[in-house]
Amino acid sequence: MPRLLIRDLAQVASPAGRTAPLRGSALADLDWIDDAYILCAGAEIEAVGRMRDLGSLEGDVQELHARGLSAVPGLVDCHTHPAFGGDRVDEFSLRAAGASYEELHAAGGGILSTVEATRAAGADGLMSTVARHRDWMLRVGTTTFEGKSGYGLDRETELASLRAIAAAGGIPTWLGAHAVPPEHADASVYLDFVLAEVLPEAARLAEAADVFLERGAFDVDRARRYLEACAATGLALRLHGDQFTEAGAIPLAIELGARSVDHLEATGPAGIAALATSDVTGVLLPASALFLGRPMPPARALVDAGAAVALATDFNPGSAFCESLPLVCSLAATQLKLSPAEALAACTVNAAHVLGRAGTHGRLAPGYRADIVLLDASDWRYLAYHLGGAVVSRVVKDGQLV
Amino acid sequence: MPRLLIRDLAQVASPAGRTAPLRGSALADLDWIDDAYILCAGAEIEAVGRMRDLGSLEGDVQELHARGLSAVPGLVDCHTHPAFGGDRVDEFSLRAAGASYEELHAAGGGILSTVEATRAAGADGLMSTVARHRDWMLRVGTTTFEGKSGYGLDRETELASLRAIAAAGGIPTWLGAHAVPPEHADASVYLDFVLAEVLPEAARLAEAADVFLERGAFDVDRARRYLEACAATGLALRLHGDQFTEAGAIPLAIELGARSVDHLEATGPAGIAALATSDVTGVLLPASALFLGRPMPPARALVDAGAAVALATDFNPGSAFCESLPLVCSLAATQLKLSPAEALAACTVNAAHVLGRAGTHGRLAPGYRADIVLLDASDWRYLAYHLGGAVVSRVVKDGQLV
Repeated sequence: MPRLLIRDLAQVASPAGRTAPLRGSALADLDWIDDAYILCAGAEIEAVGRMRDLGSLEGDVQELHARGLSAVPGLVDCHTHPAFGGDRVDEFSLRAAGASYEELHAAGGGILSTVEATRAAGADGLMSTVARHRDWMLRVGTTTFEGKSGYGLDRETELASLRAIAAAGGIPTWLGAHAVPPEHADASVYLDFVLAEVLPEAARLAEAADVFLERGAFDVDRARRYLEACAATGLALRLHGDQFTEAGAIPLAIELGARSVDHLEATGPAGIAALATSDVTGVLLPASALFLGRPMPPARALVDAGAAVALATDFNPGSAFCESLPLVCSLAATQLKLSPAEALAACTVNAAHVLGRAGTHGRLAPGYRADIVLLDASDWRYLAYHLGGAVVSRVVKDGQLV
Repeated sequence: MPRLLIRDLAQVASPAGRTAPLRGSALADLDWIDDAYILCAGAEIEAVGRMRDLGSLEGDVQELHARGLSAVPGLVDCHTHPAFGGDRVDEFSLRAAGASYEELHAAGGGILSTVEATRAAGADGLMSTVARHRDWMLRVGTTTFEGKSGYGLDRETELASLRAIAAAGGIPTWLGAHAVPPEHADASVYLDFVLAEVLPEAARLAEAADVFLERGAFDVDRARRYLEACAATGLALRLHGDQFTEAGAIPLAIELGARSVDHLEATGPAGIAALATSDVTGVLLPASALFLGRPMPPARALVDAGAAVALATDFNPGSAFCESLPLVCSLAATQLKLSPAEALAACTVNAAHVLGRAGTHGRLAPGYRADIVLLDASDWRYLAYHLGGAVVSRVVKDGQLV
């Protein structure tokens, strides 16, 4: 088995313990080692420790000298929409110059404009697009990503999206209930179609199902219908909720035992309290709030109340054209008032928990996957501190230098 | 003379015309060419045009095929503090977790902690630090940067800072009035010292002088004294003003004919109106506002009122550890409500104007410096749209590929 020794690291920082998700004050608990090494055996971490405790190693070991660098776990992006055609740069430019939502719609903007471009991209186009987006993510330290369908909304394009995400190494989530495409009369008719015609195959390709529960998209009753049908096939459940309005996403997520409810920019005190006593993780997407010029989610209140939170990019062409979890960590520190340690846990082990991989991903400890980000700084907190900087020096995935 | 032909560009975008600064609706005026070439002769641009109009070129011409890429002028960062020792990551982490300003001060934070580390760095340390920061900037498309001293505040370190900035190719600004170092009794005593002991040599090394006019730093009378003494040596004038409070920076800038007043997060309607009818450029620093979690400057109101504005990073260890003008353009579009075209002009030709280089820098047109950023997108607006992304593909400086 090939072994890789990363030696002379200035620091190694990893969320502490073996449990997940980390909540409350435990979110900031770190294993933090100065002057350290990480030893990988195959695709797993064999040992992490201080250089002075490193014994002699038998056999063939590749060595990487990492003086002046620090290491954190490979970042885990648990909420992305990487399967789309075209872009929304026209809409972005109009919004920047003050265009209203109605003007944007009249100019052909919104999710449905991406649906049109995604259907036109074809299966091969989606394969290459998702692979390119995966490469972008990897360059900024994301070694594990979830990817959602949801810009096809017909059988062929939804399934092609899920296949493209899996082919790129992503964890596919079927976002069959993202919007109602124009060929269907209303949301109920559309659900009749997707649950009968798309769900059976989507359930074989995806690990989870997701719904956009929002005014103008899917209401609580329709979201429940969609999610219950998906759960019956064995899919885990996710929800987009409380992005613009509180429309019942948190109670529904708790009722159905969903893994997460994502966005929460509009969540008030009752939602915070409910989430805090539940097993549902709140996934916070500050790059999306920034991109749209909207309020930030109540991250500090959620953590202080004891809720489990994760951080993700929401990478998508319309509301968050941003694949950078380091930038999300900077936003967490400056806008969400999470410490760098809390931000790190939120986009590693807690994000892995949302994806059902907390036992194997998101920590630097023996037995975990050898996914490692080497930062171009001797203090790992530059991950959040170096705003928009090229802070990622090298990435190791499955025990191999990328 | 060596010539470089950049051919098959998807787009070339440049602020229009030959005048500067661009104001009001003219800020959005672009020369925008699809399927284009740029021809450089030595360090200057010889021609920009459509591929179909490109005639045959005599003699030796290096060719760069840029299919799928777009080009904008090399970015101009007119406000950075690159000459410092140490970092402020401890202070950043404490602030993220909610520490108050008083707690940070008790923990040894603030400008004076950087002054101590900068004095300890020594002349050689400052040389290598500024060169490293210049390389960071260049990587994200900044081909021209201003750099301020101001973390030395003694004769030796202030002058070493200015020399390090010039040696790295930057345009030095003497920020002798940044803070009052502990060895001086008060701001007046400190000004007695710097104006007598540092100004004569600083005036030979720098192009401009700058002052931090703010409660707790230098008040209007002291700022006037400092700036008038500097102007008498031929230095151009800049001011840090209205960052936390309106303390008279804009009237003083106008009175003294300063090139710029920078920050303006606290500027109200009277300040906006005064700036709009003046020749002083307002330099906006949204990365600093984001980094500190503070309100954004009133950019839209300034532009609409007719004020000249520029955008810069404010790169420094305490309040904006960010060297990325592409990120600043994203913040301009999403937080300041400037269109991508307005943001581009603000960090190219208008920033060059603040540095006294509007006739030679910041445009892609014959006779201008051959400083060019090639973007990894066929639409140049990805500069702002691709939030935190690796949008810069190649950089040309002085007609040479970096």
